[in-house]
Amino acid sequence: MLIVKKFGGTSVADKERIFNVAKRCIEDYKKGNDVVVVLSAMGKMTDVLIKQAKEINPNPPKRELDMLLTTGEQTSVALMSMALNSLGVPAISLNAFQVTMKTTSDYGNARLENIDSERIKHELENHKIVIVTGFQGINKYGDYTTLGRGGSDTTAVALAAALNADACEIYTDVDGVYTADPRIVKNARKLDEITYDEMLELATLGAGVLHNRSVEMAKKYGVQLVVRSSLNTTEGTIVKEEVEMEKMLVSGVACDRNTARIAVIGLEDQPGVAFKLFNHLARHNINVDIILQSVGRDGTKDISFTVPEDLVEEAVAILERHRTGSLKCQQINVEKNVAKVSIVGAGMMSNAGVAAKMFEALYDVGVNIKMISTSEIRVTVLINDKDVDKAMNSVHDKFIHS
Amino acid sequence: MLIVKKFGGTSVADKERIFNVAKRCIEDYKKGNDVVVVLSAMGKMTDVLIKQAKEINPNPPKRELDMLLTTGEQTSVALMSMALNSLGVPAISLNAFQVTMKTTSDYGNARLENIDSERIKHELENHKIVIVTGFQGINKYGDYTTLGRGGSDTTAVALAAALNADACEIYTDVDGVYTADPRIVKNARKLDEITYDEMLELATLGAGVLHNRSVEMAKKYGVQLVVRSSLNTTEGTIVKEEVEMEKMLVSGVACDRNTARIAVIGLEDQPGVAFKLFNHLARHNINVDIILQSVGRDGTKDISFTVPEDLVEEAVAILERHRTGSLKCQQINVEKNVAKVSIVGAGMMSNAGVAAKMFEALYDVGVNIKMISTSEIRVTVLINDKDVDKAMNSVHDKFIHS
Repeated sequence: MLIVKKFGGTSVADKERIFNVAKRCIEDYKKGNDVVVVLSAMGKMTDVLIKQAKEINPNPPKRELDMLLTTGEQTSVALMSMALNSLGVPAISLNAFQVTMKTTSDYGNARLENIDSERIKHELENHKIVIVTGFQGINKYGDYTTLGRGGSDTTAVALAAALNADACEIYTDVDGVYTADPRIVKNARKLDEITYDEMLELATLGAGVLHNRSVEMAKKYGVQLVVRSSLNTTEGTIVKEEVEMEKMLVSGVACDRNTARIAVIGLEDQPGVAFKLFNHLARHNINVDIILQSVGRDGTKDISFTVPEDLVEEAVAILERHRTGSLKCQQINVEKNVAKVSIVGAGMMSNAGVAAKMFEALYDVGVNIKMISTSEIRVTVLINDKDVDKAMNSVHDKFIHS
Repeated sequence: MLIVKKFGGTSVADKERIFNVAKRCIEDYKKGNDVVVVLSAMGKMTDVLIKQAKEINPNPPKRELDMLLTTGEQTSVALMSMALNSLGVPAISLNAFQVTMKTTSDYGNARLENIDSERIKHELENHKIVIVTGFQGINKYGDYTTLGRGGSDTTAVALAAALNADACEIYTDVDGVYTADPRIVKNARKLDEITYDEMLELATLGAGVLHNRSVEMAKKYGVQLVVRSSLNTTEGTIVKEEVEMEKMLVSGVACDRNTARIAVIGLEDQPGVAFKLFNHLARHNINVDIILQSVGRDGTKDISFTVPEDLVEEAVAILERHRTGSLKCQQINVEKNVAKVSIVGAGMMSNAGVAAKMFEALYDVGVNIKMISTSEIRVTVLINDKDVDKAMNSVHDKFIHS
């Protein structure tokens, strides 16, 4: 069997944890498996490097920032290889240049395009555990790129696809995917299985267990994932195309506090206004979520939408720049103390009344709904920040029985 | 003009020093020059990484150690590029993969074989300051190698040769090459010029200003070097083929305390004994220096020689292993409290009596000579460790007038 195992920064934060990971890899190796390990930078190293860069240049060129950040994973893989060798197991570390991991040119947010699996296969044939840098790639100029936060998950899935691996295990500091964040919802429980689509909705909604691009890629190439803890041997959560065993109406309840609402009041009521507004934001890579349009006073219209809270200043600045030109309006209001709460479940596609049941759960605990958005397998509501805990507990317990 | 400037780890140890280096590079750039900068790892980063590696694996595989160490220079060049960009000057950092800096396969002690100058030339044509990682290369397997301590000097000289640079400036924390270590010899003074051969003898003898491989390479490719301080703008020392201005008999006095004497007593007096002895040591890469053979008692012979003090245990162990076989002897004695003091000067080739004058200087201050070795441009004596200071001052003042 060929197993790809990915460990995040927390799992390799110090010497003890590095050896802990090494031992887990050796267990699989000793059973006769081919083992490929993908690592992130140790602990908070990426944050430390970013801080170091910003002290030199508050706005460092993205190309140079990637050049700096890629040293993080290279450090992890070299040390892991030393640990494995010290335990008597042959191992070799490879970075993005050595594997040849091609990406798009976008520094800081590149996408994997192509992985050359020759070198890795060669080293596996020599019975080595192969340790590969996550998060990084090489673009067409021969420069380092990074895949954005959580990109090591994507590296692992892409490698599993390229190598036609039998398993792709994503190790984190939680036991698996939960029906809700256990720190918020006391009855939250671990799922044995979840579909790619459900996981995608949860990832996008900030469940934070898996990077959504990695789930998209796993779905695209049919790579079955296992999310499990690097700290214990509990069975994790399997992420795959279809869940057979457990057909729950709702698989999880998620919340996302990194959200703010922008209301653009008194726009001219003419064709193309919404297009212009969202086009300006899209050009600056600002993802807009829940959108609500209503008729305003005096033949105008109002458009409200949510954006990630950390981008709200930039979004407003963009809108203000166009206020005297293509985007005349009376007012731009911002509300920051809001959060999104969502239920996700492949089962809800064929079930009416799921949204109504969620609204009931919110009504039960006196939570006011500000906006609503739905997809085939998700219902999201925008509520007040301070109501998140009681909302999530009430919604969770309405759908998921422990 | 195309200028290659090399800065060591001390010169880029912190933010302030990085900007200091950046400003010196910009001065040359603003005058219309093409500027290529070679950097070592920041401050003590290489030592810190080695320590980190040894905590994981006391004897880390050399390939993996190089994989780890190369992150050091990559960090320096990325930060330097950010600093230059923040000062409004376009810059780009390149590592050994991006330049394509080919070396032999020897991890930890590789030799540069070939530098592809295309990428650097391309970036210079785009009017960028190009910052290149020193010390590192890529071998035929596509793995990182390092050139050994001081290897960044060699990188700089090799780049200057490959780019046909007009100048190659090696910045250190001293003002240039001195007639002797100013910490030991109070009358030591800075040389304006020195020949490659003299510099080679001084480098080998532990003057420590330039890596000797870099001087060999400069001599081979006729790259004129300037050694100068990164902390001030004092004119440095020019290292070149022939020194015209100042034909001194002796250019410098050097000492090397990293030395120990091994005496092998009572060897069989038959052909091949010396060959066998030094062949055993050569196979383990132990460089032997001053050699003295004398007739011992009862038809035996004694051979004494010096080795670097940090290799003396290994050297003795090798000899002991062969004592019952090919290398029968009565005794192996080790003396550690010794040091080499040398005078170096291209002028002494054509001057008789230089050695005698040196011995007189030692006699003047009552220093006993244990061994003597000479080359065309060098006289070396082995003396007691404790006599080094007075010996050097006496010898220096005998030859060099301040």
